[in-house]
Amino acid sequence: MKKTLITMGDPAGVGPEISLKAVESDPKLLNSTVIVGSLGILKYYKELLKSPSPFNVIENMADFKEGHVNIIDVLDLDFDKIKIGEVSPIAGNAAYQYLEKAIGLSMAKEAGPVVTGPLNKEALHLGGHNYDGHTEIFATLTKTPKYTMMLWSEIMSVVHVSTHCSLRDACDRVKKERVLDVIHLGYQALKNLGVEEPKLAVAGLNPHSGENGIFGSEDIEEITPAIEAAKAEGINVEGPVPPDTVFLKASKGKYDLVVAMYHDQGHIPMKMLAFDSGVNTTLGLPIIRTSVDHGTAFDIAGKGIAREESMLWALKLGTRFAEHIE
Amino acid sequence: MKKTLITMGDPAGVGPEISLKAVESDPKLLNSTVIVGSLGILKYYKELLKSPSPFNVIENMADFKEGHVNIIDVLDLDFDKIKIGEVSPIAGNAAYQYLEKAIGLSMAKEAGPVVTGPLNKEALHLGGHNYDGHTEIFATLTKTPKYTMMLWSEIMSVVHVSTHCSLRDACDRVKKERVLDVIHLGYQALKNLGVEEPKLAVAGLNPHSGENGIFGSEDIEEITPAIEAAKAEGINVEGPVPPDTVFLKASKGKYDLVVAMYHDQGHIPMKMLAFDSGVNTTLGLPIIRTSVDHGTAFDIAGKGIAREESMLWALKLGTRFAEHIE
Repeated sequence: MKKTLITMGDPAGVGPEISLKAVESDPKLLNSTVIVGSLGILKYYKELLKSPSPFNVIENMADFKEGHVNIIDVLDLDFDKIKIGEVSPIAGNAAYQYLEKAIGLSMAKEAGPVVTGPLNKEALHLGGHNYDGHTEIFATLTKTPKYTMMLWSEIMSVVHVSTHCSLRDACDRVKKERVLDVIHLGYQALKNLGVEEPKLAVAGLNPHSGENGIFGSEDIEEITPAIEAAKAEGINVEGPVPPDTVFLKASKGKYDLVVAMYHDQGHIPMKMLAFDSGVNTTLGLPIIRTSVDHGTAFDIAGKGIAREESMLWALKLGTRFAEHIE
Repeated sequence: MKKTLITMGDPAGVGPEISLKAVESDPKLLNSTVIVGSLGILKYYKELLKSPSPFNVIENMADFKEGHVNIIDVLDLDFDKIKIGEVSPIAGNAAYQYLEKAIGLSMAKEAGPVVTGPLNKEALHLGGHNYDGHTEIFATLTKTPKYTMMLWSEIMSVVHVSTHCSLRDACDRVKKERVLDVIHLGYQALKNLGVEEPKLAVAGLNPHSGENGIFGSEDIEEITPAIEAAKAEGINVEGPVPPDTVFLKASKGKYDLVVAMYHDQGHIPMKMLAFDSGVNTTLGLPIIRTSVDHGTAFDIAGKGIAREESMLWALKLGTRFAEHIE
């Protein structure tokens, strides 16, 4: 199988630390993963963490060595040039360069999944890259028109009709075509993960799914027709299920996946359920992308106390996708 | 202490059964509670459940007898006139009559808390009472202008800026004055429950609380000023806290209460957390009102298998309010 790439995220945050910890935590990961980042930063953490495996800096995937921490040194950077835990244009630009490199290698099929460490949006913008976040960078660099954010956990998963927009805009984005697209993306992702007969639920937009049109019309006019269209294609999907019970039902095993209508509808239950083990993944891309589900945590960066659990879950999901797709 | 009244809800649903089960479950409840409903229906359940305590039908609270199931027989009704598990105007009207009776007794200070069994909205409307639900009936009959729905659990509680309206309307209702009113109602409720220094959080409306105005302006223009006003009064309140993490933080003890901006923002996490033990209570009324947090469950009505847990929690919360207020 192709190697997995970890982009270490904003170098001033916890990304480099958790990347190194994750790779060192398991010989299998050491032998299947490349960190895309800056050697100077990783050297600091190697010393801090007394990380045992020797570094192997590579330019081509063919130079990969087992038993080493393999590193693509994208850009010469160390803690003389940036400060730990601080927003800076240099760090923001670096985080972007790591992504560009990793996405290019994966698109060229030289590498497999891209697993992303956290970036800081303010730094990214200061660095000259005006994106909302990872998802938009991946969509743009891979020229993907239809995509969605999935939050995955072993218990249940959620895909989103919209994410980073106001709640009013989110209401406007609940359209039959988009809901159906997101059903398709979620369904295909579960198939790609080896779920033979995925059971989907689509959440309503309004309380009680609008209670027969008394509280808003979108549930009847947009969501129901999308569900009917998906059913006609043979997809096992129910809804619109009242938002306040659908996630509980899914968490108890009734559904594998819930299609959420807006960011917080999906994020609130997933964070309640799986704060440490949730993985963020972008569906619809031509490559596999998974991510830690937390931020740069500047307040604890550089201290050696960041936890790599979320990175390990992201690596696990990336591998699971790769096993079924490649 | 004054007796607690249980309105048995729609007589065709599970309300009568869980009312009787709850009262019979504990001698303390038997000696402190009156069921407001229909004798004919309760007789059916007495036989079905082989309920041991004798019935005592009363007209005045002074006729209350310990060791009995005390019943105010509001309206002559039995299962010859309505069918178990079916929506009907007779049952819908009956549910309303029980409420009117109980609210009257509590307003006249002849009785204490009113604990409500579930009603069916369709039946209520067919019965000629065009209310959205219990909350609106209580507000109207007690002439209360400012009120809010609280979902309470031992772990955390939530109050709502709006409940039964479309998500678009909910966005419109996020106004400084209303947010501040709901902060006050929630704060006072916790004080009434004996929490000395309540810790409150106010959730944002938009994802990431609008991320500095990028995703919607309400968090800055309406919510923040309400929080500042509450802080100036000495209330311990934080926010707007991003909606996708505030409930997790509250569930871990950081806050006693979260002010939610709309129905599902509050209901989704509460149902994930406390499906069986959640209690619905209306704040701002001149009387105490708590309720089961489930519906009429027509599919299992009349079989003796309905669970009274939620009713017991509602009784517990009603008593807790009464102990501190009366």
